[in-house]
Amino acid sequence: MPFRTHMDAALAEARAAAARGEVPVGAVVVDPAGRAVAQAGNRTREMSDPSAHAEMLALRAACAAAGSERLPGHSLYVTLEPCAMCAQAIAFARIARLYYGAADPKSGGVAHGARVFAHPQAHHRPEIYPGLAEREAAALLRAFFAARR
Amino acid sequence: MPFRTHMDAALAEARAAAARGEVPVGAVVVDPAGRAVAQAGNRTREMSDPSAHAEMLALRAACAAAGSERLPGHSLYVTLEPCAMCAQAIAFARIARLYYGAADPKSGGVAHGARVFAHPQAHHRPEIYPGLAEREAAALLRAFFAARR
Repeated sequence: MPFRTHMDAALAEARAAAARGEVPVGAVVVDPAGRAVAQAGNRTREMSDPSAHAEMLALRAACAAAGSERLPGHSLYVTLEPCAMCAQAIAFARIARLYYGAADPKSGGVAHGARVFAHPQAHHRPEIYPGLAEREAAALLRAFFAARR
Repeated sequence: MPFRTHMDAALAEARAAAARGEVPVGAVVVDPAGRAVAQAGNRTREMSDPSAHAEMLALRAACAAAGSERLPGHSLYVTLEPCAMCAQAIAFARIARLYYGAADPKSGGVAHGARVFAHPQAHHRPEIYPGLAEREAAALLRAFFAARR
């Protein structure tokens, strides 16, 4: 099951982020042949960079490797619903398919709040598949925040 | 007029971006004492990075210099209405005041489209001052796109 393999890699990135003291979110970019070409976990604290979300780091690495601002035909797997920043970056990169795990009513920008892809200003709307490995992704986040309280 | 000084620096960054073949947008981050602490122009093509908007580069540089994901009390000057990606990054960075030049009905995410700051998922809403040096900022963009047609 390639879906599951890629989401497992994203979950592993999320767990590694938690071990670094970062909010546990992970992402993987997959090329049209089904190969993972970049993966990352959240590094906002380590890098002192509010834009260093897992999706942004994975997209930037995949674009740098491709030598292009755009990744047509590529998929992005991420453990949490992207925020408005990441959703707009996904649109700029022309990602074809977005698979995500847990919904994020508090900070999400795909199915909540800004709903970035619902406006023509997004330029591009990927196919969106929510709820993949949702329980595991959400459990990681819950455990992380419970331990910090 | 400090407003004008900082927007002039942003316009200079936009002109430098155009000279590099990039969409002419420039941005400056100003600390609470009124000092410019980071400035950048758009570099998406040069860096093969769809996230390398002027605002993102300036915010990332200012955060790196401050050693923090957040820039409370800071202002951001940018020649064009930020897109949804940059608007959400501005919210994450807790920028206190956003000054921008030209409106962007096609790609903007502040006064158009996703209207990122209008949703609680933005976490933070800066004071917003649109229309600063609007004519110059818009003229730069028009000249750039006219030359490419």
